[in-house]
Amino acid sequence: MVKKKKAKWTQMATIEPRGLISSFMGFSAATPTEEMNGAGNLMDFLDEPFPDVGTYEDFHTIDWLREKSRDTDRHRKITSKSKESMWELIKSLLDAWSGWVVMLLIGLLSGTLAGVIDLAVDWMTDLKEGVCLSAFWYSHEQCCWTSNETTFDDRDKCPQWQKWAELMTGHAEGAGAYVLNYFLYVLWALLFSFLAVSLVRVFAPYACGSGIPEIKTILSGFIIRGYLGKWTLLIKTVTLVLAVSSGLSLGKEGPLVHVACCCGNLFCSLFSKYSKNEGKRREVLSAAAAAGVSVAFGAPIGGVLFSLEEVSYYFPLKTLWRSFFAALVAAFTLRSINPFGNSRLVLFYVEYHTPWYMAELVPFILLGVFGGLWGTLFIRANIAWCRRRKTTQLGKYPVLEVIAVTGITAVLAYPNPYTRRSTSELISELFNDCGALESSQLCDYINNPNMSRPVDDIPDRPAGPGVYNALWQLALALIFKIVITIFTFGMKIPSGLFIPSMAVGAIAGRIVGIAVEQMAYHHHDWIIFKNWCRPGADCVTPGLYAMVGAAACLGGVTRMTVSLVVIMFELTGGLEYIVPLMAAAVTSKWVADAFGKEGIYESHIQLNGYPYLDVRDEFTHRTLATDVMRPRRNDPPLAVLTQDSTTVEDVETLIKDTDYNGFPVVVSRESERLIGFVQRRDLTLAIKNARQKQDGVVSSSVVYFTEDAPQLLASNPQPLKLRRILNLSPFTVTDHTPMETVVDIFRKLGLRQCLVTRSGRLLGIITKKDVLRHMAQMMNQDPESIMFN
Amino acid sequence: MVKKKKAKWTQMATIEPRGLISSFMGFSAATPTEEMNGAGNLMDFLDEPFPDVGTYEDFHTIDWLREKSRDTDRHRKITSKSKESMWELIKSLLDAWSGWVVMLLIGLLSGTLAGVIDLAVDWMTDLKEGVCLSAFWYSHEQCCWTSNETTFDDRDKCPQWQKWAELMTGHAEGAGAYVLNYFLYVLWALLFSFLAVSLVRVFAPYACGSGIPEIKTILSGFIIRGYLGKWTLLIKTVTLVLAVSSGLSLGKEGPLVHVACCCGNLFCSLFSKYSKNEGKRREVLSAAAAAGVSVAFGAPIGGVLFSLEEVSYYFPLKTLWRSFFAALVAAFTLRSINPFGNSRLVLFYVEYHTPWYMAELVPFILLGVFGGLWGTLFIRANIAWCRRRKTTQLGKYPVLEVIAVTGITAVLAYPNPYTRRSTSELISELFNDCGALESSQLCDYINNPNMSRPVDDIPDRPAGPGVYNALWQLALALIFKIVITIFTFGMKIPSGLFIPSMAVGAIAGRIVGIAVEQMAYHHHDWIIFKNWCRPGADCVTPGLYAMVGAAACLGGVTRMTVSLVVIMFELTGGLEYIVPLMAAAVTSKWVADAFGKEGIYESHIQLNGYPYLDVRDEFTHRTLATDVMRPRRNDPPLAVLTQDSTTVEDVETLIKDTDYNGFPVVVSRESERLIGFVQRRDLTLAIKNARQKQDGVVSSSVVYFTEDAPQLLASNPQPLKLRRILNLSPFTVTDHTPMETVVDIFRKLGLRQCLVTRSGRLLGIITKKDVLRHMAQMMNQDPESIMFN
Repeated sequence: MVKKKKAKWTQMATIEPRGLISSFMGFSAATPTEEMNGAGNLMDFLDEPFPDVGTYEDFHTIDWLREKSRDTDRHRKITSKSKESMWELIKSLLDAWSGWVVMLLIGLLSGTLAGVIDLAVDWMTDLKEGVCLSAFWYSHEQCCWTSNETTFDDRDKCPQWQKWAELMTGHAEGAGAYVLNYFLYVLWALLFSFLAVSLVRVFAPYACGSGIPEIKTILSGFIIRGYLGKWTLLIKTVTLVLAVSSGLSLGKEGPLVHVACCCGNLFCSLFSKYSKNEGKRREVLSAAAAAGVSVAFGAPIGGVLFSLEEVSYYFPLKTLWRSFFAALVAAFTLRSINPFGNSRLVLFYVEYHTPWYMAELVPFILLGVFGGLWGTLFIRANIAWCRRRKTTQLGKYPVLEVIAVTGITAVLAYPNPYTRRSTSELISELFNDCGALESSQLCDYINNPNMSRPVDDIPDRPAGPGVYNALWQLALALIFKIVITIFTFGMKIPSGLFIPSMAVGAIAGRIVGIAVEQMAYHHHDWIIFKNWCRPGADCVTPGLYAMVGAAACLGGVTRMTVSLVVIMFELTGGLEYIVPLMAAAVTSKWVADAFGKEGIYESHIQLNGYPYLDVRDEFTHRTLATDVMRPRRNDPPLAVLTQDSTTVEDVETLIKDTDYNGFPVVVSRESERLIGFVQRRDLTLAIKNARQKQDGVVSSSVVYFTEDAPQLLASNPQPLKLRRILNLSPFTVTDHTPMETVVDIFRKLGLRQCLVTRSGRLLGIITKKDVLRHMAQMMNQDPESIMFN
Repeated sequence: MVKKKKAKWTQMATIEPRGLISSFMGFSAATPTEEMNGAGNLMDFLDEPFPDVGTYEDFHTIDWLREKSRDTDRHRKITSKSKESMWELIKSLLDAWSGWVVMLLIGLLSGTLAGVIDLAVDWMTDLKEGVCLSAFWYSHEQCCWTSNETTFDDRDKCPQWQKWAELMTGHAEGAGAYVLNYFLYVLWALLFSFLAVSLVRVFAPYACGSGIPEIKTILSGFIIRGYLGKWTLLIKTVTLVLAVSSGLSLGKEGPLVHVACCCGNLFCSLFSKYSKNEGKRREVLSAAAAAGVSVAFGAPIGGVLFSLEEVSYYFPLKTLWRSFFAALVAAFTLRSINPFGNSRLVLFYVEYHTPWYMAELVPFILLGVFGGLWGTLFIRANIAWCRRRKTTQLGKYPVLEVIAVTGITAVLAYPNPYTRRSTSELISELFNDCGALESSQLCDYINNPNMSRPVDDIPDRPAGPGVYNALWQLALALIFKIVITIFTFGMKIPSGLFIPSMAVGAIAGRIVGIAVEQMAYHHHDWIIFKNWCRPGADCVTPGLYAMVGAAACLGGVTRMTVSLVVIMFELTGGLEYIVPLMAAAVTSKWVADAFGKEGIYESHIQLNGYPYLDVRDEFTHRTLATDVMRPRRNDPPLAVLTQDSTTVEDVETLIKDTDYNGFPVVVSRESERLIGFVQRRDLTLAIKNARQKQDGVVSSSVVYFTEDAPQLLASNPQPLKLRRILNLSPFTVTDHTPMETVVDIFRKLGLRQCLVTRSGRLLGIITKKDVLRHMAQMMNQDPESIMFN
């Protein structure tokens, strides 16, 4: 299935431009006036027997204006009916409330799924190392909860939890036990990832990847059938658990957005208001994306801003409000499931005890630069690798690829304690400040024996051997994560890159943080430290550096800005640290933008050739509509219909010979004055229907698009009146309109096509695909040469 | 000045439709192709001697497409120049960074101003009651900081602070002292408000009111010269302090948005990028509005969302990011000034210790209903009063009105301790939970003598006489605030209504909260309390009720949703209480919407007749472009120019006889095929110029808009070629286009006018004013009658 999709895609992307216009992008008319031009009998009987009228084909673009107009009609009908009877009134109220009901359901289901995924991942990640004897369905942490040990370290080694080697051979220590544990760790990892990739391949090819590029494309008005289907939802949920548990360098955050959008699509089908209108459906999906991020990080406001900033295309205020509701419901559902066992909403809860100092902005900005460089490196390398996967033999063995990468990951990850555990645990540890009871290696500082030990606010101390050891391991983990993530993202399993990116940043940040801390401790007398770091004070928080690094790296890869800072703000819950986070996020974005404007999602959209018209790309070239419209100079003339001189046969020939999705209708071939636009689909249906049901309509019948067909002699064949399927308000621009304006119009009004006229004469047509192609061309050319050509 | 403006306005709103189209709304062409049609010599020399070309007149609407296009041109020029020399490169970099510099400056200045205003208001509010002997410029709180008293109550009575009576007569207590204090309180209040209204009247009439309706209108693309000027900034800042200090029922939040926008406008003038482009300027103003709310509440994220949800019209992602930056800088500037002396950023910082329970949603929702009803009442009564002010003698005595309202307010407010103090102090006290050290009347609970006193988590206790006393006073304060606010908002002084609205809600909420608390204490055995409120537990937090009530009332008046909840969330800093807040906000909005869709700002916009096209109004009627366009059936034909048969004299006559802002150009009067649109201003300038400088151009010269003027005999007068000022891409729709689509196009593309054609023939024109008038008509008619007419 995956291959089928890809094949279809590639074929589409390589066929001749003319075929492409029609078969792929399609131009079909906006027909908001359908019902306005009469009682609509024809449309009525077209509606009934052919349920597909008004819907779109797979891989086609929707017409936003038309969808909006259809919804207004529906709304008008319901409002006028509601005055007729009590029952209709209730129905209209239900209809008005359905939006909120859908939001509630999305929130509940996506919150529940996120909770279940969290629990399952916890359990299965630990299963790679051992099992809980008291109850095998307990994760390591849950298993040791009831244990009496007091320190974290001892509690980790509670007797109820046994490693595989201990369980099988009785020996917990020793080389043999190590090798056995190692072997079983790799084996479990391979098993999980094999299951994941097989399920994806067999049942739901669309369940792979992070899903965000596709969701962005869908939200911009593209149809990908099945991408948000029930089957995808089920398989993505299951395989996401498997993929994350297998220890691959991937996260669950992006896929959770996809899962939430699947939930949204599922609940859309409950209400015809949403299921039958692609525009309204997309409003629901935008809100669902917000709910997805909300549960991924426990950050509802961040989720709404993510949906607004990153994924959505059309985001009216109504959607803002509903998204917020869905995000909150989802967050609260997740909290009542309480998968982390701490009644905290957020994924990485941190509390810092010391403020930051002005001078620390320097390392924070350096982390921002690192984040930007990492973003650039990752995007370039990953896109290059994905392109290679698409074009070479590599792409033909997705299962083998996943197995190989999993094997390498597991083998390399096990020896290093920082890569062995799950990535989110790693990030969590790196973010945390060293408390008094902390037993991790990273907190192995040399304590001043004279010092009383308050729980908080421990002064800076010299690092012990554990910290130096941890630094080496972290450095190795950093290199490992950087390399392996490039090869992991884009494989045929669900894979998000929020977590791996954040891990890279958190590791780098923590290393920098410890370095600054030790410098400050050992060199109190340096000028930069003198002012803010007296001996015995707690002046540097390495955990904060980790958080800043994580934000910088995530920002470099995704180019999120406000939503990133807000998500991080929700994690810490204090405005205190917004300035460091923002400094890093801004620097990272600027550095990354200097090497290429596109984030990872836009790059993948481009790689896959989706017709996505980015709101952020500014079109600044001086081309005019006439440079872009078709037909070009040497092309055959535009295929048009005349309002009163085309016969049924002519129309049928035209339909057979071309594959355009619609035809402009002109007064006559001589004057070429545009009167409307008719959709291929409507035309075909109308003629077919007339031939079957209407007496006297034969091949030589004249098709009339005028208001009144002339009274003909009885000997002439019966005329066919088709004004009702004619869209009398096609969108037009003049040939002198700058492309900049045309791009703006396409974006803001969500058009599929636009007719080009000069002094009222029809000259050509511009489709969304033409616009995209032109923008790509302009981007690749030297701007100078276009500017003055 | 105020009257002058109003007069101009009224006149505009009542003149005949034809005159109105041109003089008020204006239609003028988008001319993005100006520079595309040649080297632009004509435009160049037009540009030089007439600096006003390309700008707009006062009370006119801007053309967003044209502004955007002009900015792209400017950008293109800078980019191409930047390759020429190092200096140009630096200039281009400076240009790219200017946006961020402006944001930084806005943040710094608006944060500083907000801090200064806070300090001054604190001092002057206390000045009404007494003076600090140690340093007269200290407020009561600052004066007593250094004092040694420990409880809040004692500290309030520190010896350094003396009431006026004590200072003047030596007696702090007794009837005489009370009367003297009362008298001086009223006197100070009258003095402050007299100063405020006089300053506004004499120096800056635009400084009155909250400013948000006007800012919304300006952001939607309207020009009101001087509204955001330096003079307004200065006077508004000063008079805001005076107005708030006078004890009137008004807040500083709305006006702070206006002040921040004035700062934005001020810094725009530093960079030609912003000062010369009305579209770009509005991006800066949107961000400034966010900074304003950010400092008003100490809620940067809430500020950005407020700008997005409530005031902005065009809010691209770039603006989102910049707004966030400006809001943060402003918030941090304010914090470093630290006007509240507690290094808290937020206006009302609260911390609650107990969670809320499901059953409490019932009172929360009731508070929501109250908020909605209050919103409806306030809007209707206030609009009715403001209309009366506009239409009757009342409006002629603004100073007297202010004096009278201040007198009544001060006289009624002094006896009640809850109205005597400043409204924000009142809200702050109502929001706060009763701690162990609290000495306010509201916390006069009967303590269990056996109970040890922990600082937090005090169980519910029976109310003492102080609480019952406070309840009565609060009830009176509630009625007083409700009535007086209606008369205060809209007077000729700076006045915001966030604080008064919140006060109404907080009082009602606190009353309900205490009632629920006492019910729960005295009736532990009732079923509803049984489950969640055991004896000795702290189950009801009256402060939370106050906060929920405040949110509900604010929501009812302004119809804010997400931004409201986020601002409240930033005040409490915990997700914990979002559900109660949201339940109340949603209920309040629904209840208020049931009585009328418009919030207070939209109502004031309508009252003042500003041409504001609300993004939220859905247009659902079935009218077509042909029903709205002019000329109507019995009107004289549209004033058009022909491309090659009009003489200079004809054009001059046309300009003299009509006052349209532009004229369509057609091929000939017979064919009426549209070729372009020419602006009145450009036409006037071009002809004037040609007559002066170009030899041979006389009254009988033919004006040519064609590409080439024919070679004429020498005896014929020299032709005048004007193609360069012709906009060759005017926006057109067909006469069959549904108005729904037309409204959408006007909104999304920010058009000023749109030409209507049928089969390429020009039929008429639709201006933004026509659209607004039509929408208002449709709203007032019975929807049924329109739907099927």
